[in-house]
Amino acid sequence: MNDANDLLSLCKRRGFIWPSFEMYGGVAGMFDYGPLGCVLKNNIVEVWRAIYKGREGFVEIDSETVNPREVFKASGHVDGFADLMTYCRACGSPFRADHLVKDHYENPDVLTPAELDESFARFGVTCPECGGQLGPVEEFNLMFKTNIGPGSDRVGYLRPETAQGIFVNFPNLYRYNREKMPLGVIQTGRGYRNEIAPRQGMIRMREFNMMEVELFVDPDDKDWPGFPGIEGEELVLVPNTGEETLTMTVGRAVEEGIIANRVLAYFIHTTKQLLVRLGVDPARLRFRQHLPDEMAHYAADCWDAEVLLSYGWTEITGIADRGCWDLSRHAQFSGTDLTHFRRFDEPREVETERVRARHKALGPAFKGRAKAVAAALEAVSPSEVRDGRLTVIADGEETVLTDEYFEVVKVTEKAAGERVVPHVIEPSHGLDRIFYSVLEHAYAHDAEKDYTVLRLRPEVAPVKLGVFPLMERDGLDDLARRIYGEVHDHRVEAYYDGSGTIGRRYARMDEIGTPWCVTVDYASVEDGPDRGTVTIRDRDTTEQRRIRIEDVRPVVEGLLEGRLDFASL
Amino acid sequence: MNDANDLLSLCKRRGFIWPSFEMYGGVAGMFDYGPLGCVLKNNIVEVWRAIYKGREGFVEIDSETVNPREVFKASGHVDGFADLMTYCRACGSPFRADHLVKDHYENPDVLTPAELDESFARFGVTCPECGGQLGPVEEFNLMFKTNIGPGSDRVGYLRPETAQGIFVNFPNLYRYNREKMPLGVIQTGRGYRNEIAPRQGMIRMREFNMMEVELFVDPDDKDWPGFPGIEGEELVLVPNTGEETLTMTVGRAVEEGIIANRVLAYFIHTTKQLLVRLGVDPARLRFRQHLPDEMAHYAADCWDAEVLLSYGWTEITGIADRGCWDLSRHAQFSGTDLTHFRRFDEPREVETERVRARHKALGPAFKGRAKAVAAALEAVSPSEVRDGRLTVIADGEETVLTDEYFEVVKVTEKAAGERVVPHVIEPSHGLDRIFYSVLEHAYAHDAEKDYTVLRLRPEVAPVKLGVFPLMERDGLDDLARRIYGEVHDHRVEAYYDGSGTIGRRYARMDEIGTPWCVTVDYASVEDGPDRGTVTIRDRDTTEQRRIRIEDVRPVVEGLLEGRLDFASL
Repeated sequence: MNDANDLLSLCKRRGFIWPSFEMYGGVAGMFDYGPLGCVLKNNIVEVWRAIYKGREGFVEIDSETVNPREVFKASGHVDGFADLMTYCRACGSPFRADHLVKDHYENPDVLTPAELDESFARFGVTCPECGGQLGPVEEFNLMFKTNIGPGSDRVGYLRPETAQGIFVNFPNLYRYNREKMPLGVIQTGRGYRNEIAPRQGMIRMREFNMMEVELFVDPDDKDWPGFPGIEGEELVLVPNTGEETLTMTVGRAVEEGIIANRVLAYFIHTTKQLLVRLGVDPARLRFRQHLPDEMAHYAADCWDAEVLLSYGWTEITGIADRGCWDLSRHAQFSGTDLTHFRRFDEPREVETERVRARHKALGPAFKGRAKAVAAALEAVSPSEVRDGRLTVIADGEETVLTDEYFEVVKVTEKAAGERVVPHVIEPSHGLDRIFYSVLEHAYAHDAEKDYTVLRLRPEVAPVKLGVFPLMERDGLDDLARRIYGEVHDHRVEAYYDGSGTIGRRYARMDEIGTPWCVTVDYASVEDGPDRGTVTIRDRDTTEQRRIRIEDVRPVVEGLLEGRLDFASL
Repeated sequence: MNDANDLLSLCKRRGFIWPSFEMYGGVAGMFDYGPLGCVLKNNIVEVWRAIYKGREGFVEIDSETVNPREVFKASGHVDGFADLMTYCRACGSPFRADHLVKDHYENPDVLTPAELDESFARFGVTCPECGGQLGPVEEFNLMFKTNIGPGSDRVGYLRPETAQGIFVNFPNLYRYNREKMPLGVIQTGRGYRNEIAPRQGMIRMREFNMMEVELFVDPDDKDWPGFPGIEGEELVLVPNTGEETLTMTVGRAVEEGIIANRVLAYFIHTTKQLLVRLGVDPARLRFRQHLPDEMAHYAADCWDAEVLLSYGWTEITGIADRGCWDLSRHAQFSGTDLTHFRRFDEPREVETERVRARHKALGPAFKGRAKAVAAALEAVSPSEVRDGRLTVIADGEETVLTDEYFEVVKVTEKAAGERVVPHVIEPSHGLDRIFYSVLEHAYAHDAEKDYTVLRLRPEVAPVKLGVFPLMERDGLDDLARRIYGEVHDHRVEAYYDGSGTIGRRYARMDEIGTPWCVTVDYASVEDGPDRGTVTIRDRDTTEQRRIRIEDVRPVVEGLLEGRLDFASL
């Protein structure tokens, strides 16, 4: 844990992350990204975009963070996005109830309020702050609540995930995609979770950053074109059927039914590719399947990418097959058609069941609303009838109807295709956790020499090149600034440093993960600016080479793109 | 205004912007960025970064959107960020009070509640919705309010601007910059303004995107190194001294005292460079100085970049010299030192005044707080004494102290430098408004042919290249996909389109502003994939050239970077 503290202090000192609002005493669970952190974070987003937009051809949207209550009523967050909490009766401190009994249960977050109350009594749990008696356990909804516009008529919440912004835009996105499946959509941005008492640094933040992917697929087609190319690749899996950790190929995991289907397996593997490319150590990465009591009731299958951090194994990405849950719920709550029209190869006679409204009964009972209720009835599927009743939403109001008001009829139609509710495959990334994991896995501290190197992968490193003049005189500084400018103008982040010994300057660059540094010395200027050479040094090997000044930019670009190898310079 | 409606409908149809939450009836003043809009918005941000990070060497941070109340108490938003509103007594609709009398006053937003009440009576203003009587005019704070953590002890607000996140990080940023001035910091992200009744599309949004720049400078040095390079450039200015619009050079505007100082003038010109580079028509761009009653009392000078839109002249960026206001307020409210230590060339004897605490009086009066109060007293400047009293904040509590508790003493010190509160130059950009302006100025509709072209500048266009096979067979489609892949893999956004006539496909690309299209025809495949040619077409001239297949990517990259000119292909 010393390393974790050293890393956090480095992050603060060098401008990666800063605890927010320090001058006002700080707010737990909130962090700001400083200059280096902001670049590192943006670089991570760019790699994610390169994979999902570039390689997979998905589209990106940017939707609102404040959403009206209706959205989260449909998504289930208004009713179900809560932690159980308790206050100390003596000092008033709030606590997450399950955290207080974590030494007594393996999975305390499945306990009910009553079970928690009882376990406080049984294990003699008291307030960790003052030893006082704990109050009753109650639910606390974790969404930040606000009002949209004046008055309190319109309740809004800060989104707990970016995903809902994609689901509620499904009709627009489907049209944009020319009504074809699959349809892949990505979004990055803020998510909010009003934690009761956040701890664990960047792992549990009240305001965080996500990179979410929602892939809509035909429910009968859970294959993926890229699958054959990766089915021989290996994954470390922790299935929910036993304690064992298995290393097996993607292909075998699907064949043996460990991962539910090919498209899900493909994106579990894509997650591995993404994380490893960002700098997560593959030896400290595994995929753990949700336990049956963890998994959402609607999910067909769900896996967490977990990395080993100083906090233990920590979830940094979730990859789920969410079935038809999201679109079905929004269709139901908004009365909007959110189906995909799956075309048959040629038109077919199909016998199908339909809900038909009994207009004669509806008219007298619902008067002005009758037309809307009838339309809502005929839009739902007969499969939604429960005990002879149907629940519809018409004019924003939920109504339960007995079969006095509708009938289910069999019809034969010539159909060009059929409507299906797309399923959703969701790789959902916690950007801040990935950011932190990348830093922790890159952090190398030599206690003996008290020397720190961040072995960030060049692609994500916030500064690619340090540029130093040996002395800030005799034209060395001018030449160094010219090299700095040339590189920087080509959008390669560079840092000019003219102060302190060269060793001190290397140390400063090593500490922030800069992969290469060039030093301008007297030999650089003696041969004239066009023929001189400079020293280039590699962070990880500390080896040095001399290269021509005019080659600095192409060499750095070549190293960055992986076309060149430092050892062969 | 037909064009504006056509443009909005194009934006919606083609996936630039979508009104948010349409399936739940929508929320006024909220929009989502669709696939094309998201790319266009990101491209605008990248140009802004290229100028401020790349050219000027500023650093970027990313701070929290939910802030505790203390931040906005200091910034003045808790007390002053309000619109005046009224409700209709009959139908309950809320209105911005000043909007209801806009036909009667030139500047209705300076009227007090009493003046507005009176003017409703005088002009017989009633509810625009139902004709009902209007209720009393009252203040409505425009910040979205929430609670941080459980309970309501800790009030938080969604930030109305990104700027405060930079100010409250000043100590971190100053250290990052090795305690030097100037210090330039940029931030892009969400801002929130809980409008009473938003209208005007993307011009007045409840949740919006900003690109803000805070440049901290030594108050005695308001020059800028780049100034000589641009002082001969022209600006269109509307000073607050008369009605006249002047066209004059940046240099003359400063010499004649029209713009307060060189650094402010430099960044007004930078704003022009940015907007024109993004595609704002320079003939529809002007800089209007705030009227004396518009300007914040602390601002030394303030200008709005206004563009002519279908809504009239509209502010899209504000450029202000905010003096020492921001840092002084946060220093006062947080008790933190937010000064810059300006080094003298050599140490000087300076006679200075200091506040000294009277410990003997403080001890008995303040007991446990005495030490904190004394420290707070000695941290403030004697210039803050008002009527013999000083207001300090110690342990988070504000205390007013008479001179029973302190004295102002003259001291002579040998000083290496002196502490000054940096001044802030702030170019603050409304990203959504810029986005919309770029679209409106690019929009060209030929009513006769019913043909639309978005003349977006290639640098910001969401798609750079359309790739079409003449027919989707005989290998033309494979070759077109190969070209698409080659370009797309090099991060040049491309769009493959194989359906409809070539004319229809050009029209689709013209409508979203794609600058170039290539078409693969039979001649392309006949000579073999390595020796064939394709047609490349220019959006604005509709001219066509044939180029070699292997040249497609370098040609498009050359056109994008401005190294090549279509006419000379």
